[in-house]
Parts: sequence; C-alpha cells; structure tokens
Amino acid sequence: MTTIQFQVSGMTCGHCEMSVREEVQEVPGVTGVEVSHQTGELTVASAEPVDEAAVVAAVEEAGYQAARSA
Amino acid sequence: MTTIQFQVSGMTCGHCEMSVREEVQEVPGVTGVEVSHQTGELTVASAEPVDEAAVVAAVEEAGYQAARSA
Repeated sequence: MTTIQFQVSGMTCGHCEMSVREEVQEVPGVTGVEVSHQTGELTVASAEPVDEAAVVAAVEEAGYQAARSA
Repeated sequence: MTTIQFQVSGMTCGHCEMSVREEVQEVPGVTGVEVSHQTGELTVASAEPVDEAAVVAAVEEAGYQAARSA
C-alpha cells in the first residue's frame, strides 16, 4: 500500500471533510481516505500509486483546493 | 404568512446551512426557511405560527444551537 498526503484549504467543518472524502474515494485505485478540516491534512491510500492530479481535481470538485504535501 | 427569526450558533459553511434547512423544513407548518452561516440568522416562514420549540429541536437535530431572536 502507498499513501500520499495533500494539504487542503477551505474546509471548515465535518461536512466539508465528508464532501472531500466522497469525491476522493471515487478516484480510481483509492482504497482509503483520511481528512481533517482542523489540520487540512488529506491522506490517500492505494495499492498502486494514484494519479495525483485526479486527487487534486476531486478535491476541487468538492469545492476546495489541494496541494501535494508529502 | 408569519415569520420568526432565530440566532443559530455553530454553523461554519454552506453545508451547515443545508443541514439546518433540511431539518427545519420538516417542522410541521413551515413553508420557507432562510439561513446564513455568516450571520447565524435563521428565518422561518409559515402560514400559521409554528411551534418554536420544534424549530429549536430541529436545529439541534442538525447539530447546532438556536435561540429565538425576533
């Protein structure tokens, strides 16, 4: 399993986390999503490396901005 | 038509507004709901006066606190 981390800006509450989670878990290959509106951290788990741009696009689809952080 | 206003605390975003709106519009007699997370103002419209306690309970059901303001 691999994980990649992103920093997401604009989330203010648990509903925002849920929106991000719902979009990101639809990205092909994603097997797990952890997200915190308090820290802005988004961790995406997958068996094989996922398309980072697709994750960023999914976060934008939810209405927020993401940047790869680690 | 009558309207009553409440002050709602704890809403941080549009998702929060939506949660409040969904619960409050289920209160018997309610015909319209306006809510802003920015001001915390909740305005409830109805043909006949609605049960204030039911509105407050609906807001609590959504996860926030409300108090009659006008």
